[in-house]
This record gives sequence, structure tokens and C-alpha cells, in this order.
Amino acid sequence: MAYAVHSLITETQDITDKGLHDVRAPVQVPSQAADKSPPSTRKVRSKYRHVAAPHSKAQPSCLSHETTASPSFLGFRNLMVLTIIVMNLRLVVENARKYGLLITLKSNLSSRDVKTALVLYACTPCHLFIAYVIERVAMEHAKGVIGRRKKTDPDADKKPETEKQTKEFLNTWWLIAIAHTLNATLALSISSWWVYYRIHNPGLGAISELHAIVVWLKTCSYAFTNRDLRHAMLNPGGPESALPEFYSSCPYPKNITLPNLCYFWWAPTLIYQPCYPRTDRIRWTFVFKRVGEIVALSVFIWLVCAQYAVPLLRNSLGGMASFNISSIAERVMKLSPIAMIVWLAGFFALFHSFLNALAEIMMFGDRVFYEDWWNSINLKEYWSTWNKPVYHFMRRHIYSPLVGRGWSHQAASTWVFVFSGFLHELAIGVPSHNILGVAFLGMVLQLPLIAVTEVLSKSAKFGGKVAGNCIFWLSFVIVGQPLAAMIYFFWWQMKYGELSKVAL
Amino acid sequence: MAYAVHSLITETQDITDKGLHDVRAPVQVPSQAADKSPPSTRKVRSKYRHVAAPHSKAQPSCLSHETTASPSFLGFRNLMVLTIIVMNLRLVVENARKYGLLITLKSNLSSRDVKTALVLYACTPCHLFIAYVIERVAMEHAKGVIGRRKKTDPDADKKPETEKQTKEFLNTWWLIAIAHTLNATLALSISSWWVYYRIHNPGLGAISELHAIVVWLKTCSYAFTNRDLRHAMLNPGGPESALPEFYSSCPYPKNITLPNLCYFWWAPTLIYQPCYPRTDRIRWTFVFKRVGEIVALSVFIWLVCAQYAVPLLRNSLGGMASFNISSIAERVMKLSPIAMIVWLAGFFALFHSFLNALAEIMMFGDRVFYEDWWNSINLKEYWSTWNKPVYHFMRRHIYSPLVGRGWSHQAASTWVFVFSGFLHELAIGVPSHNILGVAFLGMVLQLPLIAVTEVLSKSAKFGGKVAGNCIFWLSFVIVGQPLAAMIYFFWWQMKYGELSKVAL
Repeated sequence: MAYAVHSLITETQDITDKGLHDVRAPVQVPSQAADKSPPSTRKVRSKYRHVAAPHSKAQPSCLSHETTASPSFLGFRNLMVLTIIVMNLRLVVENARKYGLLITLKSNLSSRDVKTALVLYACTPCHLFIAYVIERVAMEHAKGVIGRRKKTDPDADKKPETEKQTKEFLNTWWLIAIAHTLNATLALSISSWWVYYRIHNPGLGAISELHAIVVWLKTCSYAFTNRDLRHAMLNPGGPESALPEFYSSCPYPKNITLPNLCYFWWAPTLIYQPCYPRTDRIRWTFVFKRVGEIVALSVFIWLVCAQYAVPLLRNSLGGMASFNISSIAERVMKLSPIAMIVWLAGFFALFHSFLNALAEIMMFGDRVFYEDWWNSINLKEYWSTWNKPVYHFMRRHIYSPLVGRGWSHQAASTWVFVFSGFLHELAIGVPSHNILGVAFLGMVLQLPLIAVTEVLSKSAKFGGKVAGNCIFWLSFVIVGQPLAAMIYFFWWQMKYGELSKVAL
Repeated sequence: MAYAVHSLITETQDITDKGLHDVRAPVQVPSQAADKSPPSTRKVRSKYRHVAAPHSKAQPSCLSHETTASPSFLGFRNLMVLTIIVMNLRLVVENARKYGLLITLKSNLSSRDVKTALVLYACTPCHLFIAYVIERVAMEHAKGVIGRRKKTDPDADKKPETEKQTKEFLNTWWLIAIAHTLNATLALSISSWWVYYRIHNPGLGAISELHAIVVWLKTCSYAFTNRDLRHAMLNPGGPESALPEFYSSCPYPKNITLPNLCYFWWAPTLIYQPCYPRTDRIRWTFVFKRVGEIVALSVFIWLVCAQYAVPLLRNSLGGMASFNISSIAERVMKLSPIAMIVWLAGFFALFHSFLNALAEIMMFGDRVFYEDWWNSINLKEYWSTWNKPVYHFMRRHIYSPLVGRGWSHQAASTWVFVFSGFLHELAIGVPSHNILGVAFLGMVLQLPLIAVTEVLSKSAKFGGKVAGNCIFWLSFVIVGQPLAAMIYFFWWQMKYGELSKVAL
């Protein structure tokens, strides 16, 4: 096949006055003539141009099963891209004729919302500092324990912990744990309460709520990690107590400092480590490029939402109110390419551009904020690759400890998804002032989908992997997201918008 | 990258109770402990699960330019396929709600049309038999010439042709050529006249006209090829006169028989060869499969046209009548996916299924009726790969002879496209009763497009090849075909349909 195409290209390009048969079926001259001529001129063209024999050997069509090598279908990929562009360009033209320009620079943010958000933004990180104070107290206590032990037995730091010492540590940990829990719970609940009752705008609310969740997770990680580091210091030696060698540059309690905490506060990660891989310098051109991407993608998302998603969501209200399945399905299908492009742009802006810019400024070395989740052949792979910061947190502070306590993998995974569902509901339900449980359910429903796609992806055949990848896209981007957006938009309109004024 | 995904999969599948750091950052035990333990147990897990260090080395994001290997984007191909399916499924739902079922089994074929088409179908091949009679006469004359030559000089068949003999041959050829031209021209013009004036239905007309064109091309090829074979017989010897060795099994004049002509009449090719590569037997299961494909694809094309293309074309009439560019553009874009799928289905049905079935029945060996034209990086490649029977004809009987007479490649190519434009106009303009010149212009406009895409495809960069392929798809399938369909539909409606009754 490749040969055929190649020969065809050279053929069409290098035609002089030779006939087609020169390439296809070399003309054999009678042997006596051939013997007289030198070898280089043996192959001559016929002066009879109408007798060339293109049909000189039996060969199958290139789409037939009989071909030895199936042809490339790369051209169809280009056709698909063009088809998607043209189909959407048509929707753009249709939208422009129907609605004109819907985008306005008029902001519908109230100044009270903005003030509340700013206050929240300033206050939320305080809880991290409270956690620092708690850790500071715990550290001083641990140092005192070691000092007392050394006084009674100078070799205490080489001996394993006694049962009494373990009990002592656990008693202290309970007190510290209660203090941390109080602090962390307050951090999250105060923020959520403010967002739910005081920030009307769902966009601003979502940012505030996300910030609160991030600080909450960071506080939890700080507490958990330092608890283990402290215990490792109190109970040295023994292979089970080994810490990652990477931490040797900053052993406990040297890490309990304010600069160390502040670095963790701004670092693009949710898990606390005493030290992180670092880069040598800040490349400002890199930062500016990423910031440029963030700005461009944010404007793009805003335009797409205002001009294309909003009228579509508005038109879906009738079908949603009367629960007309075919109308809802039609709207979901119309919304899905828009939701898809917004999702992809948002993913890139947040996980690539924003986190890379932040990492560059913080000289944070590990930039694996995501892996190639778009190739996921099952949903488990997707959930463990698309959002590495959250994945690391879940794995380090929930999954592994549960499995370590003897839980089965299934049970630990289930608990991770239930917890994640709770966080998703918090991040979406609270700012939209509608705790519907849709986001929670969306996360929990991942469990049966994971089971199905895992069976598919484990099948040796290539088709199983493609099917797994397609189920991922279908469930997640093509049906899941538009449907969730429609449901939340509907309830928002029920509570505050057009539908709240009319009886359904 | 691949390693990361692989390790991730095995990781998520084979988790026992080990922490993430076992894979990411192996825990190094203190050397004295390591020395005591056997090598296999050297790597141990930490019992502190909250201290694992996922961030242990500096590494870039996988979409960053800094990665050594860019990740696979295969998942996005699946997403594209799903998006196209979903977007079109939505149009199916919309169409069903708007128009209901438009498909009826009611035929709008008049019995006069059918009778005319049947008569034409029976009469057109007669011209092939007239060509046979002419060739028979020419053959007898040539045999006479050789007989006379041998009488005067027994070694005549080993000597090159004298000038007098050449003149004699040319004089005879003029007579034969006039007879063939008359016959062929009559074949085409009678059929076209009947189709234009007597067959109202454009579909039936197109089939009849195509049949007439095929027979006309076969007649021309038969005449041209036998002329060269005859001249080669009259002027034997000399390297320039060599014929393809493949023909040695059936030398002139043994090929001037009725069975030989009948085989050419039905063989899936437009060029005459005294013999063709043949298969051993007819595989009837192969034939039935291909026939099944033809039936299924024909029904599919009919459904798509009746339910989706016709209402769309009908809605385009207003825009076409008022020459509203944005409305025409919107219609072209809406029609393009439909035209594309109809084109692809039609291509497969005709060039793969039909020609393969016919070839199998005729035991015709060479099944290269097309090559992988969908990967064409320029339009020249497309025109030389999508329709090999016509390409072979054009090359053997028009391009090569013209180049042989000293024409430049450009001039010969231009003439091929002008001739092809004439045939296209005949095949579309005549059955639609509107000789608009659009099909002719469509073919002639290929010449500047070929020039542009050739420059692009010759650029060494991969982007140039992709751009060439995209220009091919855009010009041909996405804009060219829907626009041509709309223009011919509009003029048809002007002449016979809704628009003929109202003043515009």
C-alpha cells in the first residue's frame, strides 16, 4: 500500500513522456534486441501509447480483507476534525441569527458578594496558622518527652517504644487530634455557611468554596503528616518506622517553622511534605506564557458560556419542568459539545496553565498535576490521573491508612468515592444554594461504572479498551456534565429565576 | 509516560497494603538494618502511611514542551467519533420532531421513463458491436496488406516499415477513425438526447446517462487500442514497437472475436486489453456479500436523502432565490455531513462492492478500482486514486498520447480535466435537464486547487501534508458537493418544481 502511494506520488510528479506501463508493467523487449543494447537501455518504452497494460496482475482492493496490509485511515481523522468544526460553525451562524450578540460586559456581581468573598479569602488561611500553633505545642511536648526519656536512659532513642510510651503518645494525639478536628471543621463549616447564605453569585461562591476546601485539605494533611513524623521521632529505629530518605534534609521537628508552613500554603499540592523537589530559579517568560493561557482560556470559556450555553440551558427549562424525556435528551446532546469544550479548556487552564504558573513562581519541581487521562481505558484510570493533587491526598490520607487498618481495597475505594462525593457536593451544591445530592450521586455512581469498565479494559482485545475509553467519555463528558449542568440550572431558576415566579 | 500509566495501572490493581511511596520513592532503610536482612527484604514499607512522598522528583507536566516524549492522543479520536455521533443523533431527534417520517414507498417514476430507460439500456451496447464490425473490417484489410507484402518480399515481416507503408496505414486509419467517431458520437449523443428529452426522473436519467458514457468510453478504448495493435502487427521488430509481454497470450488479430468483445463489455474496466489477469473461479459467497453491501448501502443512502437531505434542500430554496450568502453558507454547512456520509456510502457501494462483485462474476483479477484516496495530500493524488477505471482511461488514451506528441504535462493535464469536466457535465447536467456548467466548472477549478495543494504537499513539514489533505476534504466534500447539490436542486425546482409556479 505504502509502496503503491509512494510510487503514485513519484509517478504523478515525475512524468516525462513515459506511459503508465513503464511503472506498472515494464515492457519486455524481444531478447535479440535486448542482447544488442547495453544493460542500461534494456527497458524501453513502447511507442504505442494506447496499448499500455495497467491490468497486468491480479490484486485485491485496498479495503478488502484479502489485502496483506490494511491502508492508513489518517485522512479520516482530518475529515472528523473538519466535520466537527463545520457542524459547530453552523451552530454559531444559527445562534447569531437567532439571538444576536448575548455577551455584555455588564457584571451581575453585587458589591456585598465581592466584600464577603474577599473577607473569606483573607480569613480562611488563618486556620492553617491555627494548625501550625497546635503542631508547635505538640512538638514542644514531644521534645519534652524525649528529654525526660534521655534523662532516665541515655540510650532511649535507640530502643523501640514500650507499651506505656505508645499509650502516652496516643493520649496526647487524642488531644491534638481534637484540636485539629475542631479547627479544620470550623474552617470548612464557617466558609460553607458564609458561601451558602451570604454569596448569591454562584461563580464567586464556587471559587470561595473551592478555596476553603483546599485550605481544609491542606490543614488535614499538615496534621496527619506531622503526627506520623512525630511518632517516628519518638519511636526511632526498626525497619517499619523508616521514613522516605527524601525527607532527611529536613527531619522533624526542624520542619515546624512558619516559612515551611507558608511554602506549603502556596505550593501547588494538597499533601504536606517537610520538603519538596525544587527548581533552581523562576523562569518569568514561562510564567507569563501560562498567565496568557489562563486569560485567553478564561475569556474563551466566558464567551462560550454566555453566548451558547446560557440560551441552551434557558431553552431546556420547559422540557425539565414537564419532564419530557425526548426534549431533555435533545438538550443534553446539544449541550454536550459545548460542555466538552468548556471542560477541556477549563481543565487546561486550571491544571496545566494555572498550576504550572504557580509551581514556577514557588519553584516547585514536581509538575505532574495530571497524566494522559484522555486515553483512560476505564474510569479508575481516569480518576487516578486527571487530578493528581486530589488523587495524592485521597491515596495518602484515606486509602492507604484504611487498607493499613485491614480494610479491603473495595471498601477503602468506596469510602474514597463517598468522601469525594461529599466534597463535590460541597463545591457545587453550596455555591448554587441547592444541596441536591446530584454531585454526590455522580461520584458514587462512578463505582459501578468503574467495575464495568475495568472488566472491559482487562479483556485482551483492543476493542475492549476502546469501548472502555468510549464509556468513560460518554458517561463523563457527553452525558454526565451537561445533565448535571441542566439539573443545577433548573433548580437555580426554580429558586431565584424565571421559574420561581410562575406556578409549574 | 507509558511507564507512568503502566505503573499506575498495576499499582491500582495490585495494591496490597503498601503505600504509594513504594513505587514512587523507595524507602531506604538505615544501612545497619539493611546489612542484617537478606537482600530480598531490603525494601520495606514504612508503617507511617501519612508520610509517603509522591513529590520526590522534579518532572514536567505531560502536555508541557519540556517532556521528552509527547503523550498519545488516541482518546481524543474516540471523543471525536462520539461527538460526531451525538451531534448527528441530535439532528435526527430534531428532524423527527419537526417533520415526522418523510420516507414513503410511493414511487414517482413514470412508466414512460422506465420504458425509455430500458430501451436505452438495451440499445446503447449495440454501438460496441458496431465498433467490433469496424475493427473486423480493419483487421481483414491489415491481413490483406501483410499477405500482399509477403508475396512481393518473403522477409517483409522482419523489415521496418517504409514511408509509403506508413502513409498507407494512416490513410486506412482515417477511414476507420471516421467510422469509429461517427459510431461513438452517435452512441453518446442519441443517449444524451433521449435522457434529456424523454427521461424526466433525474435518478433514472443519471443511470442511463452513466451507462451511455461507460459504453462510449469502452468503444473509444476498443478503437484506440486495436489501432495500435494493428500498427504493431504491420510494423514488427524494433525496440520502440514492443508491446507489453502480458499480451503475448492473445496477439493481434486473435483478439478480434465476439467473445473477447463481450468480455470487455462486462469487465469492470474502461480500457480495452486483449487479455486481462483472471481468477480461477467465482466465489459465490464473496459475490453475495458484496451484493448484500450494495443493497444495504443503497437503502441507507435512500433513507438519508429522503429524510434528511430533501427537507434541507427544500429549506435552502429561499436563501438561494434571494441570494442570501449567510443563509446559503448555513445550509451548505448543515448539508455537508449528510453529503459526506452519502458520498462515502455511495463510493463504497459503487467502487468497492459493485465493482468487486462484477469482477468476481467476470473472474477479473485486478481489483484496484481505487486506492487510499482519503489520505490524499493534494488534489492530484485524489484524482489519480479515487476512480482508477477513469484514471486509467484518461492516462492511457488522453494524457500519454498528448505527452507523446510533445505536449507539456501541464497542457496535457489541463486537457484531461477539461475533458473530464465535459463528461461530468454530461453525467449531471443532462439527467437534471439543466446544463448549467457547474459540474464542468467544478472539474476545471481543480487545476488551480491542484497547483496550491501540490506546493503545500511538497513542503517537507508534516503540517503541509495535513493542510493539503484538509483542503482536499474542504473543497471537495464539505463545500463542493453540498453547494453543487443545492445549485442543481434550485434550478430543478425553478424549472419543474415549486419555484416554477411563483414569480421570484
